[in-house]
Amino acid sequence: MDRSTPLVAIVMGSRSDWPTLKCAADALDALEVAWEARVVSAHRTPDRLVAFSRGARGEGFKVIIAGAGGAAHLPGMVASMTELPVLGVPVKSRALKGLDSLLSIVQMPGGVPVGTLAIGEAGATNAGLLAAQILALSDEALAGRLATWRADLTASVAETVED
Amino acid sequence: MDRSTPLVAIVMGSRSDWPTLKCAADALDALEVAWEARVVSAHRTPDRLVAFSRGARGEGFKVIIAGAGGAAHLPGMVASMTELPVLGVPVKSRALKGLDSLLSIVQMPGGVPVGTLAIGEAGATNAGLLAAQILALSDEALAGRLATWRADLTASVAETVED
Amino acid sequence: MDRSTPLVAIVMGSRSDWPTLKCAADALDALEVAWEARVVSAHRTPDRLVAFSRGARGEGFKVIIAGAGGAAHLPGMVASMTELPVLGVPVKSRALKGLDSLLSIVQMPGGVPVGTLAIGEAGATNAGLLAAQILALSDEALAGRLATWRADLTASVAETVED
Amino acid sequence: MDRSTPLVAIVMGSRSDWPTLKCAADALDALEVAWEARVVSAHRTPDRLVAFSRGARGEGFKVIIAGAGGAAHLPGMVASMTELPVLGVPVKSRALKGLDSLLSIVQMPGGVPVGTLAIGEAGATNAGLLAAQILALSDEALAGRLATWRADLTASVAETVED
Amino acid sequence: MDRSTPLVAIVMGSRSDWPTLKCAADALDALEVAWEARVVSAHRTPDRLVAFSRGARGEGFKVIIAGAGGAAHLPGMVASMTELPVLGVPVKSRALKGLDSLLSIVQMPGGVPVGTLAIGEAGATNAGLLAAQILALSDEALAGRLATWRADLTASVAETVED
Amino acid sequence: MDRSTPLVAIVMGSRSDWPTLKCAADALDALEVAWEARVVSAHRTPDRLVAFSRGARGEGFKVIIAGAGGAAHLPGMVASMTELPVLGVPVKSRALKGLDSLLSIVQMPGGVPVGTLAIGEAGATNAGLLAAQILALSDEALAGRLATWRADLTASVAETVED
Amino acid sequence: MDRSTPLVAIVMGSRSDWPTLKCAADALDALEVAWEARVVSAHRTPDRLVAFSRGARGEGFKVIIAGAGGAAHLPGMVASMTELPVLGVPVKSRALKGLDSLLSIVQMPGGVPVGTLAIGEAGATNAGLLAAQILALSDEALAGRLATWRADLTASVAETVED
Amino acid sequence: MDRSTPLVAIVMGSRSDWPTLKCAADALDALEVAWEARVVSAHRTPDRLVAFSRGARGEGFKVIIAGAGGAAHLPGMVASMTELPVLGVPVKSRALKGLDSLLSIVQMPGGVPVGTLAIGEAGATNAGLLAAQILALSDEALAGRLATWRADLTASVAETVED
Repeated sequence: MDRSTPLVAIVMGSRSDWPTLKCAADALDALEVAWEARVVSAHRTPDRLVAFSRGARGEGFKVIIAGAGGAAHLPGMVASMTELPVLGVPVKSRALKGLDSLLSIVQMPGGVPVGTLAIGEAGATNAGLLAAQILALSDEALAGRLATWRADLTASVAETVED
Repeated sequence: MDRSTPLVAIVMGSRSDWPTLKCAADALDALEVAWEARVVSAHRTPDRLVAFSRGARGEGFKVIIAGAGGAAHLPGMVASMTELPVLGVPVKSRALKGLDSLLSIVQMPGGVPVGTLAIGEAGATNAGLLAAQILALSDEALAGRLATWRADLTASVAETVED
Repeated sequence: MDRSTPLVAIVMGSRSDWPTLKCAADALDALEVAWEARVVSAHRTPDRLVAFSRGARGEGFKVIIAGAGGAAHLPGMVASMTELPVLGVPVKSRALKGLDSLLSIVQMPGGVPVGTLAIGEAGATNAGLLAAQILALSDEALAGRLATWRADLTASVAETVED
Repeated sequence: MDRSTPLVAIVMGSRSDWPTLKCAADALDALEVAWEARVVSAHRTPDRLVAFSRGARGEGFKVIIAGAGGAAHLPGMVASMTELPVLGVPVKSRALKGLDSLLSIVQMPGGVPVGTLAIGEAGATNAGLLAAQILALSDEALAGRLATWRADLTASVAETVED
Repeated sequence: MDRSTPLVAIVMGSRSDWPTLKCAADALDALEVAWEARVVSAHRTPDRLVAFSRGARGEGFKVIIAGAGGAAHLPGMVASMTELPVLGVPVKSRALKGLDSLLSIVQMPGGVPVGTLAIGEAGATNAGLLAAQILALSDEALAGRLATWRADLTASVAETVED
Repeated sequence: MDRSTPLVAIVMGSRSDWPTLKCAADALDALEVAWEARVVSAHRTPDRLVAFSRGARGEGFKVIIAGAGGAAHLPGMVASMTELPVLGVPVKSRALKGLDSLLSIVQMPGGVPVGTLAIGEAGATNAGLLAAQILALSDEALAGRLATWRADLTASVAETVED
Repeated sequence: MDRSTPLVAIVMGSRSDWPTLKCAADALDALEVAWEARVVSAHRTPDRLVAFSRGARGEGFKVIIAGAGGAAHLPGMVASMTELPVLGVPVKSRALKGLDSLLSIVQMPGGVPVGTLAIGEAGATNAGLLAAQILALSDEALAGRLATWRADLTASVAETVED
Repeated sequence: MDRSTPLVAIVMGSRSDWPTLKCAADALDALEVAWEARVVSAHRTPDRLVAFSRGARGEGFKVIIAGAGGAAHLPGMVASMTELPVLGVPVKSRALKGLDSLLSIVQMPGGVPVGTLAIGEAGATNAGLLAAQILALSDEALAGRLATWRADLTASVAETVED
């Protein structure tokens, strides 16, 4: 697929979030949607946060997927500085298992939305799919690939519990 | 604004959810995005659920906002039967204050995403805004109205705590 | 035992739920109640969900045991489309350890009941037992086997903590 | 309806639980299922608990609905002394809003099931409905009334949010 | 020490609780207080529960330590049938890590107290110590051993973090 | 009753806890056990905490009931400085409804037990009763009053839900 | 007191947080520490957030108190852009009562600390006091006022529960 | 670095907390701030608690870092007996994963602040950093080292997810 014009930015607070966020990239790959992943730490690299958020639209991104754990401020802060749709992925945290990540991402005040997915890998996969669903609103070919992907998903569910 | 061709469907599990979901409608109104609201109960009207979900794209909707409380299955079930982006609003429940609604909506398995917003009115407002952000990706005029709306929001924040 | 006319359907959202739900099957086996297990994903196979739920009574099932994890919509959605008693088993989820599964299953709105059991294997065992208790209301032989089973359970509890 | 041969026993830990449990009675009334309500406190009247539980089947009851709040032991203790199906209703508690009631009722060990419904009035309504669903397995007339009740429920869901 | 006249009964819902409850026995051993441990399952052996609880005082016990996990009804049910002080130990449960055990034990209604200790082994140790503190109110020698035990505990706390 | 030689000390972190703790006093009054109540703030009057805890036994107290809310350190700190049995009452807190109080009191480390009762007034009542149960181990008359009190409690539970 | 050179900045996400944060101001007033309060919304005024955080040290502030509710990102984001000590106050939120605010503020990743106080008014009061304690490290007069304030606090705790 | 005049005291409830609290020491080492670590158990060594807290200022300490798990009373009790700033580190507990530790430390009543950090190692690291930020208010050299440390932190965040 063509990686030269990524439409989806995948940002995360730390490199250690990549095993989770990679699931978003995998979903986008399966749907042939170009993406680009970067580490943008709200707390450790606030300048990069501002630069990325302010510049994302200009760079050509259409949707931003942001993942973080614990006091997970990245998705909400990106959302405060862009008009692009922002999807949030709560990364499972060590002590509280991602409940802190989830509440930190989803409980945004009125005015600055973050579309939040499930804690962990399933959430990351779904962030990729939701980004594709959004892009497919104006991309018939992608809509077709999504329909096929969904049909494959349905077909993959065996009916019996044992072979 | 032109209500004849609504782009956003606002569905809810019960009429009693309307005071919450109305905030989504208000946000869409402020941005001049046409919407239509319906009561679709996943549990009490499963046929209507299937009919709505399967038909939403054909009806011309682009984004679906679904709100419910308690064991809130509506957003996820709609998402399982449409390829349109689905945004979920957890309605505050009586005993558990919406924690059950939130977990029932956000913790979707990989394959069927629901972009979840905050519990209650702030979440509904943000569902309206996120729907508009999604639509604005292919609607320059709406993007302009969103930018103005956001600037107004920023300007509305007084700096002092007392007059 | 006679598997040709299963009275209890055991459905689950994913094949990965089988190690949990198998405990329900084991309890039914112990009581010589015929059962049949199927994978029915509310989210990935919504058509199968509707077909199964609408047809379960006609197929001759008397009780449905439904297990799922995370945003566990299967039990409630089955219940919305059948008049058979539905028993729900919250499968332990990765991040939130089944608390999300439990709330998603038990917090049903008035009108559509799901009799919910404990999180995990104990809950699945008990779903099998409760199904048998329900069937025993009109099956004296089964009632006798249940009484024996319960007596055996009581007898199996050693009084001392060490041999 | 004929109250002389009640099939469903509704027991509760305290008279103060009646406003909640009355919803179970109302549901049973609507379906013309005879019931009888008693206060049986697991903690304050343990002898009554044993007598009721051991005698319930002999009294002609088919299903037991048991509701309690806080450290809600009544449903599980009744279940330990009867082979009848026991349905549990967590009553909303003052400090923890019924989360303690729910966990005390639903987390039963393998061997002694309690089919648990939602916290509060919706749960009580559903306990009545689930009891009726169980009885309807061997009562065609009741099955017919249940089908009508469910159809009425579906019909009662207005499609629009405003008149 | 003299095991012939145990003053403290240690009861538990299942043999699998013994590794936790053994810590209570160890504490009592250290203080030379005779104890006796039995498996008494509230749910699987309700007759044994009644017999034990009603007879505990007559057997010569002064304090009862009761431990259980999940929907932990044993301590509260014992307390409902004896006037002896009952101390409850929440055993760590698989899914909810003992939060269910704790709430099921501690949230007793007014009238039937259970003095509840911490979840798991520390709680069991403390149940043993609290039982000894209670007995020491009328046993000067035991009071002396407790004072020594406490002094040893204090002395055992090294001041430095490294040798 | 004779207040000149109180056997039970009721201490609380703040005067605002008295409406809760008064229930302990009421229970003791009903059983004719002399008590004395004092405000002892672990955080605001640490010297009074030490003086009270170290001196309680010498003052003639046999059991200490300690109640506090939020980061409720009073019961545990008293327990660390006396060999008397300490019973803890979690007072309902404003934001977290006593869950913080409960965990702060009950989760004591091995070595320093606090017998913890339920959150709020029921817990305070039960602290009074448990104190009486402890004292009754060496006071036959009190044991008799307790038996009567318990019998009255049982008798007070009406069997019917309506007059 | 001299307001011309405020040493403590009190910032909050919304004017509606002022009733909570005012308690911090009151505590500082009582200790004669000059403060200044501003509304700085992390999400609605991100530029103001950056400007304030980057400039706070230059403006002469020594300690920053930041309060917010829900997905409370303000304290952590300020901390990411200043080297001044930042104290966080979780404001009580509507649905989750401040548990979301608390986790969003306190669970910061290693590298960017926020010293977090209790949910609500008590936490705000304590933020003011902690700021004063920090400033008192190099201000003997303030240390004296703090000692007096603490002594007054201790003296204000009446020993009896009734007059 | 010069360990002869430690400015920061690191105290913990048990030697087993050292692997967590050592992260505070490491952060202080990195910033060349002298520290001293001691085991001070609020519950097992209450005299040591009083002696340490009352004497900390006289010993020359400027900031106290206190860590504990479960019913974590150490930070709050130290704070009640010193006017030095106290920073609290909730140590991850076995059953409840540090949620109990967090609430026991952070929910202090108005009047006695504890600046609380995150659960576990990240929190300990941040306690060290916050202590340094406090000391840097009157130590220009340390402020410089902190600025360098923060710049290094920012620089260490690689932008790409893969090499």
